[in-house]
Amino acid sequence: MTTQGSSARAERLFELLSRGSSSSCLITDLSDIRWLTGFSGSHAWLITHANKMFLITDGRYTEQARAEIATHQANVDVVECRTQAAMISTTKSLTLGASAIQFQDSSMSHQLFCLLQGELGNSLVPLDASSKFLRRIKDDQEIKLIESACLIADQALTQCRGLLSQGLTESDIRDELDYTMRKLGADGPSYDTIVASGPINAARPHHHPTATKIENGHTVIIDVGALVAGYHSDMTRSFVIGPMNAEQSEFYEAVQTAQQAGVATCRPGVLASEVDAACRKVLSEAGLDQYFTHGTGHGVGLQIHEEPFINSSASVILQPGDVVTVEPGLYRGGFGGFRVEDLVVITEHGCRILNTSPKDPTCPPLQLTT
Amino acid sequence: MTTQGSSARAERLFELLSRGSSSSCLITDLSDIRWLTGFSGSHAWLITHANKMFLITDGRYTEQARAEIATHQANVDVVECRTQAAMISTTKSLTLGASAIQFQDSSMSHQLFCLLQGELGNSLVPLDASSKFLRRIKDDQEIKLIESACLIADQALTQCRGLLSQGLTESDIRDELDYTMRKLGADGPSYDTIVASGPINAARPHHHPTATKIENGHTVIIDVGALVAGYHSDMTRSFVIGPMNAEQSEFYEAVQTAQQAGVATCRPGVLASEVDAACRKVLSEAGLDQYFTHGTGHGVGLQIHEEPFINSSASVILQPGDVVTVEPGLYRGGFGGFRVEDLVVITEHGCRILNTSPKDPTCPPLQLTT
Repeated sequence: MTTQGSSARAERLFELLSRGSSSSCLITDLSDIRWLTGFSGSHAWLITHANKMFLITDGRYTEQARAEIATHQANVDVVECRTQAAMISTTKSLTLGASAIQFQDSSMSHQLFCLLQGELGNSLVPLDASSKFLRRIKDDQEIKLIESACLIADQALTQCRGLLSQGLTESDIRDELDYTMRKLGADGPSYDTIVASGPINAARPHHHPTATKIENGHTVIIDVGALVAGYHSDMTRSFVIGPMNAEQSEFYEAVQTAQQAGVATCRPGVLASEVDAACRKVLSEAGLDQYFTHGTGHGVGLQIHEEPFINSSASVILQPGDVVTVEPGLYRGGFGGFRVEDLVVITEHGCRILNTSPKDPTCPPLQLTT
Repeated sequence: MTTQGSSARAERLFELLSRGSSSSCLITDLSDIRWLTGFSGSHAWLITHANKMFLITDGRYTEQARAEIATHQANVDVVECRTQAAMISTTKSLTLGASAIQFQDSSMSHQLFCLLQGELGNSLVPLDASSKFLRRIKDDQEIKLIESACLIADQALTQCRGLLSQGLTESDIRDELDYTMRKLGADGPSYDTIVASGPINAARPHHHPTATKIENGHTVIIDVGALVAGYHSDMTRSFVIGPMNAEQSEFYEAVQTAQQAGVATCRPGVLASEVDAACRKVLSEAGLDQYFTHGTGHGVGLQIHEEPFINSSASVILQPGDVVTVEPGLYRGGFGGFRVEDLVVITEHGCRILNTSPKDPTCPPLQLTT
C-alpha cells in the first residue's frame, strides 16, 4: 500500500520473471500492460528483453501510446505494426538471443500460441502461476482511484434511489444511474449496471435490465460501479417497494447479517475461503444457504473481476492492499432476491469499507394513479 | 439472408463439424453460444455430442439460460456447474465415447487447452479455420436488429449534433449520445463512443473522450453505435466547428470521396481487399494516403469487430448477407482528423447502406461569451 511509480511496477514484473527460465517475456494481458505502461488502448503486446521494454501496437494507437507512456513515466519504446505477421516478426527480432520467452498462458489463445511457437526461434514457457497476482496488491494511487470510483457510485445511487417509487422500468433506473455517474466524473459504468426487479428478474443474480416496471411489493437489486482512470468500483444494494412482508424481512436480514459477518472476517492472514464460510454460515443457520448460488467476492482493480477470488475453495491468504468485494445474495424464482455488496481494502489490522451507501432496503410505495 | 430459426443455425454448426474428425465439439466463444442458443450471460460452454446440445453455466445464470433458450426455441439442455473443475468433469461425462472433440482454438486460452488435454480422455482438435465465419452471413432477423441499431445511432446523432457548437467537452457529447441512444431503445452504446476533438485528440483514431473543450476551428470525429438485442451498429461522422479552412476542406473531401468509392465497390464476388484498395486509391491520388493508418472496415453482428475484415491483405470474397463497415480516415498530429463510416449489408447485386446520417461536416461556430 505504499505509493509506487511505474518503475516499482516493472520491478514486480522482473521479480516474477526471475522465478522463470528467462528474463524475456511477452505480456498479452491488456490490464497488465496498462498497469505497467499506462497504455489504455485495445490492442498491444509488451515485450521485455535485456532489461528493456517495448510496446507493439497498431497505427490506431501509436501516438496515443507514446503520450500515455510519457504520462505514466514508464521506460518503454513504442513500435508500430500494422498486421499480426508484423507483430510476430518484430517480437522475433526484439528477442533475438533469448533462450526462452515467458508468456501468459491464460490470456493467450491456443491459436496464437501455436502460431508463435512455429514462428519464433525461442521456446515459449508459461509465466509462473503467480503472474495472475501481478496487479493484486494495490498501491496508494490505485486505492485512491478505486475510492473515487466508489464515491461516484454511492452518490449516483443516493441521487437516483428515489426514482424506484416513481413507476419507472429497470432500464430507466439503469439509464439514470449511468448518466449520473458520468456527470459525477466517471468515464462510465464499471460493468453493465444491474437493476433487477420482481419475482423473476431479481431471482437472476446477473440480470440485464429490461422494460419491466418496478412495482409495489417487488424486491429490487441494484448492482452499480463506476470507472475512473481504468479503475473499477462494485457495490450492490437491495430494496423492497412499499411495506416488506415477513419473508422479505427474513431474507433481507439474513443477507445483511451474512455480509457483515463476511466483512468482519476480512483481515491480513485470513484465507479467502474463510470469508466465504463466514457468509455461508449465517445463511445456513437461517436455513437459506441453498439460495446463495454464487461465490462471495472477487478482487477489483483494472479489471472488475480479478484475483483474489473469494469462494469456498479459495486458498489465497488476504494481504494488506487487497481490494475485494463481499457480496452474499439470496435468489429464489417466484420470490425475487437480495444481494448486499461492499468493496473493502485490506489494511494492516483489518479492512476498510470503501462504500458508504446506507443499507436500509425500504422504499416508499408507488403512488397509484387512476 | 433468408429467415432462419435456431435449428438452421445449429445446422450450420453441424455442417462445419462434418468437415472435421468428430461430431462432438466444445464451443467457448460466447457470441457463437448466443447465436446458437440465445444465452446472453458472461460464462458458459456449449457441448455438442451425439446430436444433442448442452449448455454448461454457473449458478448466476441457470434460470436465465433456461428462459433465454426457450425464447430462442433452441434444443439445448442446461447443466449447472459451480466450479471450473465441475465444468471439465461434466464435459468429460457428456462426451463419453467421442473419438475426438473439436474446439475453438482462437477463443480458448492456451492454459485451458492444456488443462482440458490433461483431464479429458478424448483428443482435442481445432475446428476448421472457417469456424470464425460461422456467424458471418446474417439472416433477415439479424439484419433487422442491426438496422434498428443503426437507426437509433442516426437519430441520437441528429438530436445531439447541435451540442457541438455549445462550448461543451468531448465527454459531455459522449454522455448525451449514450443517454439518448438508450432513451431511443438501445441496451447501450455498441462500444465506447468516440468523441475526438482538435489537433491532438482527433489525430487519434481510437481516442477516448476527455474533458477537452470543443472549440472553433477544431476537427471533431464522432464514432457511435447502438446495441439492440446483442446486435451492434457502427457509424462515424466528422465535423469542423465554424468555417473550414482550405486544408480541412481538402482532407474532408478526400475522406468522403474515398468512403463513397469503398461503398461503391461493395458487392458479391468482390475481394474485401478491393474495397480497401478503392479507398486507398482515392487518398493516394490526393497525396494523403500516408495519413490513413488503419484498415478500411470489418464485419459487425453480435461482435462489434468480426469477420469479414476489410484491409489490404483480406482475401475474403464478399457475399450477400455480409454486414461490414466502410470507414477510411485521415489523421495527422497538429491537424486533427476525419473519418467517415457507414455500415452496409451486401445484397444480391450490390449493397445497401444502413446509416442515414448526413455527411455535411459543417457546424455553426461557438458563440464566444465575454
